[in-house]
Formats: sequence, structure tokens, C-alpha cells
Amino acid sequence: MSLVVQKYGGSSVADAEGIKRVAKRIVEAKKNGHQVVVVVSAMGDTTDELIDLAAQVSPIPAGREFDMLLTAGERISMALLAMAIKNLGHEAQSFTGSQAGVITDSVHNKARIIDVTPGRIQQSVDAGNIAIVAGFQGVSQHSKDITTLGRGGSDTTAVALAAALNAEVCEIYTDVDGVFTADPRVVKKARKIDWISFEDMLELASSGSKVLLHRCVEYARRYNIPIHVRSSFSGLKGTWVSNEPQGDQPMEQAIISGVAHDTSEAKVTVVGVPDKPGEAATIFRAIADAEINIDMVVQNVSAAATGLTDISFTLPKTEGRKAIEALERTKAKVGFDSLRYDDQIAKISLVGAGMKTNPGVTATFFEALSNAGVNIELISTSEIRISVVTRADDVNDAVCAVHTAFGLDSENDEAVVYGGTGR
Amino acid sequence: MSLVVQKYGGSSVADAEGIKRVAKRIVEAKKNGHQVVVVVSAMGDTTDELIDLAAQVSPIPAGREFDMLLTAGERISMALLAMAIKNLGHEAQSFTGSQAGVITDSVHNKARIIDVTPGRIQQSVDAGNIAIVAGFQGVSQHSKDITTLGRGGSDTTAVALAAALNAEVCEIYTDVDGVFTADPRVVKKARKIDWISFEDMLELASSGSKVLLHRCVEYARRYNIPIHVRSSFSGLKGTWVSNEPQGDQPMEQAIISGVAHDTSEAKVTVVGVPDKPGEAATIFRAIADAEINIDMVVQNVSAAATGLTDISFTLPKTEGRKAIEALERTKAKVGFDSLRYDDQIAKISLVGAGMKTNPGVTATFFEALSNAGVNIELISTSEIRISVVTRADDVNDAVCAVHTAFGLDSENDEAVVYGGTGR
Repeated sequence: MSLVVQKYGGSSVADAEGIKRVAKRIVEAKKNGHQVVVVVSAMGDTTDELIDLAAQVSPIPAGREFDMLLTAGERISMALLAMAIKNLGHEAQSFTGSQAGVITDSVHNKARIIDVTPGRIQQSVDAGNIAIVAGFQGVSQHSKDITTLGRGGSDTTAVALAAALNAEVCEIYTDVDGVFTADPRVVKKARKIDWISFEDMLELASSGSKVLLHRCVEYARRYNIPIHVRSSFSGLKGTWVSNEPQGDQPMEQAIISGVAHDTSEAKVTVVGVPDKPGEAATIFRAIADAEINIDMVVQNVSAAATGLTDISFTLPKTEGRKAIEALERTKAKVGFDSLRYDDQIAKISLVGAGMKTNPGVTATFFEALSNAGVNIELISTSEIRISVVTRADDVNDAVCAVHTAFGLDSENDEAVVYGGTGR
Repeated sequence: MSLVVQKYGGSSVADAEGIKRVAKRIVEAKKNGHQVVVVVSAMGDTTDELIDLAAQVSPIPAGREFDMLLTAGERISMALLAMAIKNLGHEAQSFTGSQAGVITDSVHNKARIIDVTPGRIQQSVDAGNIAIVAGFQGVSQHSKDITTLGRGGSDTTAVALAAALNAEVCEIYTDVDGVFTADPRVVKKARKIDWISFEDMLELASSGSKVLLHRCVEYARRYNIPIHVRSSFSGLKGTWVSNEPQGDQPMEQAIISGVAHDTSEAKVTVVGVPDKPGEAATIFRAIADAEINIDMVVQNVSAAATGLTDISFTLPKTEGRKAIEALERTKAKVGFDSLRYDDQIAKISLVGAGMKTNPGVTATFFEALSNAGVNIELISTSEIRISVVTRADDVNDAVCAVHTAFGLDSENDEAVVYGGTGR
């Protein structure tokens, strides 16, 4: 008998009605002859309410206690979901991350999964139960403290359990129909993608697509677990993310999978850096020591006359102040001229494994932007992605123009609700 | 260094302000040189809200899942309390019932504690932390499922931990100043009791006093753990419950400890029961099989002429319908005439170990009721308690009259807020 892991996000179980709707869907999978393991997030706003309570008692809540607090959210949703399933006449048991064998390191609030020992879950489904597992949480290997996995934690729990249980598929239910060729709120003619490779999905995720987080896709790729992203509100097929197309999925991958955009970043330019070895290292060591994750890094050849160059990089806006402060402290050592900070930017990325073997993709991309009157400020490429930075104001025009230029527009306008939770 | 266990109920931690107030009080105990272990209930209405959610997804929630759900409540309050303490500059760690080693049987919703293995708690306090433990919950010995302890569960958790940790005292903080000689809402001149023996406290608890539940006092008596019941809102000394008075507590126990009353019960009378062996057994087996706990049982001598007798008993009103149905089914077998059901009754109990050696207590009790114009319907006595059943309408007059007759009235009227939570 094949085993499927299903994951439902907070918006799918926002209230009692949602929980009952999800319960019916789970029971359907069971009736179709599958063993079913379900990973569930906290209900709707529960997590935000708990964070708010914590802020009321302590300005900087301790990590260990914060995790203990937050995990109450999934405990509530998973118990209610198990009850709702039993009320439909099927057996269900809920398990905390710890009971499900999700073993993590001990970095509170953003723990990483070290191992999954799903003995109790396997036993439970072998006994005919539907197993409901709390997403987003685990237990630390040595101290046996409760940990949370940080952003995308529930999706990662689902994929990790799917891997440990040799599941046929990990179904990720959300409030959109799947992964689209662009954000449907911006591009009315965006199309749902039927199948996409792990590699392209990874690039989309790191370029601003919010349906699946990078971390979860990376885990699925490593253990080769097919993901099926679909809506918990409709019965439609969603998007398959896997190594190879399966069944009635399209056999040939499109040249371009999609266009992603991201307006959450800012750009920092270090102006007038002496063009000699070690300068860039000093700059980025300072950024790393401040525990800031950066995204694009661009350095052009230095002007021969001055021997000075400019280094630009992008980073989350929320880290902007910290980065500038860290760089100011290195000014004497590096000897740069000045710092420029710009948070009115957008990043637009074209993703597709097919671009490797298709000359002209870069040209078409830039022409489309040019025709739309969009100026390019930075360019950065990988094997299967081209990203540019533009003015934030231009982002919608830019994405639509590129989407059309690569033939991604669907025949008819589709009205799609697009969202997604970060957990 | 002496170790104290403190327990705070839901009304003491109803909101962020309450949690911060409680945190300060806990830190004071630590500053006074004690090792401190704190047991905490869920915040205010949390439990009721969770029960309401469960009712929305399932009319009869499964026990295992219901326990999983409810334990989210303490998880929230204990994590917040630990954060609030750390915010005051002291180290604190929160622990679930399972982490604290509260091992129970596997009867969900009303599990009993089998063993307490508080190794992690001892380690935590030895390392200088204040340990915060979720009340009301444990983990089942064999199946390792999360259980809840039912009514009075948090108080029992506190006493059980105090016993396992060899605590000097178990302080139970509540929203009243202690145990009173009668319910201060009924008797304006009720006095706070400074010290009361386990035995008298047990009788008061089973006679309608709600400050401490029978179960928790019984546990404390068995392991000889002194309980100090006091208010979390004032700094006043409360009531000590122990084997022997200590320190500046009064050395001699009063003849009468207090007057308790209970209006939550109903009376069932089985009329015309043949006075022969086995009839009563059949009746009470039927009640027991329906899992109904009964309280008083009264049977008088049978009328010689008919050979028939009447058997009356009291039970919680909530069990009334079930009891009548169970008895109807035995009618043919027992051959009684009819059943009478009366839920307009009150039970008034006089409690005090001193009454054993003081003749005239019973007479004074009945005279006081008679002078107040209160009719007695049933009488039942133990060595240290006399209970009567009267009309519910008479309860306030009866309790006040008895309180005055035994010299329990305080000098001045005290305005006391009286309440208490069942958890």
C-alpha cells in the first residue's frame, strides 16, 4: 500500500469549517487506498497572536521558551483535525514533532532537522490510523528541548517525513492552485505550471516565488521526493515538482519555467573600493559577522584611471540598517569613498533549465525590458537564471513584458487568488 | 537550600499583566534563597475556548486528541511565564508534564498520576534555574500519549512534584486569601483559617468547599506535604494545611473547623424497596455500572407492617437523568414502588476533628437549624463531620445560623472576594 504525506497550511485550517473541510479531503485519500500522514500548521492567526502575547511579557523572549510557546499552535490544530477525522468515522492520532521523531539541532527558532525517526508514525498508519503530525517543530538531539524550524518549517517537516517514510508523494496543500509562470496578482495571464524540475523550482523560490520555500525544495531534491503543490479549496491538479515528469505530466520541460520578482530587497553600493586583493573579502566578512544573508553581488571592472571599483549587493530590506552600520565600521580599513543605500528596487528573474542550450534568451529578456521602457541597474546570472535589478515602480510592467515575450501568457485571463503562508 | 513548589491557577495568569505580576512573586521567593519550582494552569479562559473549538469540529471529541488539545493551554502560559521571569533577570526553563516526569495511567481526560520522575526538574533547579511546569498534564506510562488529569489536576501536579522533590512546602496561589470557616459570599462574618489538619480539609473539600479539591489534599496527606493556600493578589499569609501546626501557627485545633455547603447535588429516593438482603446491592451496582459517583446514602429501618423501606442517596445534578434511567431498568428485578427525584436540595456540613470528643455538637447543630426554621430531610455523619440535606432555599439561613452557633463569626465584617478555579 502506498503512503502519501499531505501538508495543510494555516490558511487551510483557519477555523472549524476549514478543519472539517480538510478532514474530508484527508479521508478521501484514505478511502482511495493510501496510508495517509498529515502535517499541519497552526490555525490562521494563532502564531501571530502568540507572538503578540510574548511581546507583552518580554521585549526579547528567550529562544527556548519562545519555541515552547509557538508549538502550542500546531498542538491545537492537529488535535482538532484528528477529532474531525474521527468524527467522520476514521481512526486518527495526532503526534507532536517530538513524538513523530523529528530530531533537530538546538538552534531555537530556526532549528535544522538532523534526523527523522518516524517509528511511532509508521506503527500508527500500519495499525490503520491516519497520523496527524505537528509541522514546524521538533526536539533537540542532546538537550531534548522543543525546537521550531523557522520559516517554511511545516513544508520541510512534510518533506522530511515523506523521505523517512518512503512516501510516494508529498502533497502540499495551500490557498493557490499551484506554482504559476508568474505572480498572478501581477500577471493576469499567468499560467499554472503542470510540472517543474527541482532545479527550476529552487531558482524560482530564491527569486521571490513564495509558494514553496527554497529549504523545502532542497530537502525534496536531496531525497528525491516528488512534491505536488495544490489547493485545499479546489479539487484541481496542481503543480508537480520532481526530477522527472511522471504519468500524464508533460515530457519536455519548457525552455523557460517562469518569471519571478521580489520587492523585499534593498541595494547597497560600496563606492570607490581600492581594486586590490582582500578588499571585497573584508567587506563581506563584516556583513557575514553581522549575520546578514546577502543575495546578488555585482562588481564591475575598475576604472583604469582611478584604480577604484564599486561593489553592489542586494539584501533583505529588514537588514539594511544593520548592514550599513557594519560597513561604516570597516571604512577606515577598506578605505572606500562612500556607501549608497537604495530600497526602492525590484529584482526580476527569468528561470528555466532550457536557457542553457537556447542562445538568445538573454537578448530577448533585455529587449523586452527595453521595449517596456524599463532601465536595468544590475545584472547577475546563473546557469538557469537571469536576474536584473530595476526601479521598484517598474516591476509590474517589467514582469508582464517578459512573460509575454517568452510566450508564457495563457489563452484566457484567469482570476486566481494568490497568497501563501510563510510557515 | 530548601525547595518550594508554587502553583498558580488560571485566574492568576489570566493576561500578560497577571503573568508579569506572578513572575515578580516567583522571583521574590528565589531571592529569599529558595529553589523554586512553579506549576501553572492555562491562562484564564483558554481551556474553555479550546473546548468550544473541539465542540465545533466533533460532538464527542476523542479522549486522546482532546487531551492533546487542552495541554496547549498550559504550554502557552508556562512559556510566557518563563519569558517574563527571564525578563526580570533570572533564569527560568519551562517543562511539559511529560518532560517533568509526570507519569500517569492512560485514562484520558482524567488520568491518575502513577509516578513522578523529576530528574530534569531537579537538574534545572540545581543549575540555578526557576523551573516552570505545566499543570494538569502528564504522559501515559505505556503508550507515551499525552494525558490530562481532570479537575484539580494542576493542584495535584504541584503536590505530586512537591512530594517527589522533597519540597518544604507546596504553595497554592489562588484568587482568595485562603480557606474560610464558611463561604464568605454566604457568611459575611466567615474567618480565614490559619491552620487546618489534612483530615478536616478533606471533609470540607468533599462537603462543597472549592478552594482545594479532595484529590490534591489526599495526595498531600499521603506524602505529608504541607500546603499553604494563599492569594496571588495580596502578600497575606493564607491557610496552612498539614499534619501538625508549624512555627507561629495555632497549636490547638478548633473543635469545629468550618461549615461547608453544596447546592450542586440532587436527591434520589427509591420508594418501597423490599427489606431483604441484596436489594441495596442491586440498586447501587446499577448506579456504579452507569459510572455515577454518589455521595450520601441513607436508609432507615423498614416499617414493620409492610416490610418495605426507602433508600435515598445524593449525587451530582448532572448525573440525575442517567441515574434515573439506570434505576428504571432494575425496577422489575428489585421490585420497588417508585422513584423520586429532587434537585432543589442543599447539603450543609459541619466539619471538625474536635467533635469526636465534644458531646453536644450534634444537638447544637440541629438546634441552630431548628431556630432558623430550617427543616432537615436527611442526616449522615462521619467521625468528624455531620451533614444534613435541606431545601435549597434555606441554605444561606442555615449556614449562617450554624456558623454563629459554633462561635465561628469573626469580630468584624470582612469583604472578601471568593472564587476558585476547578483546574
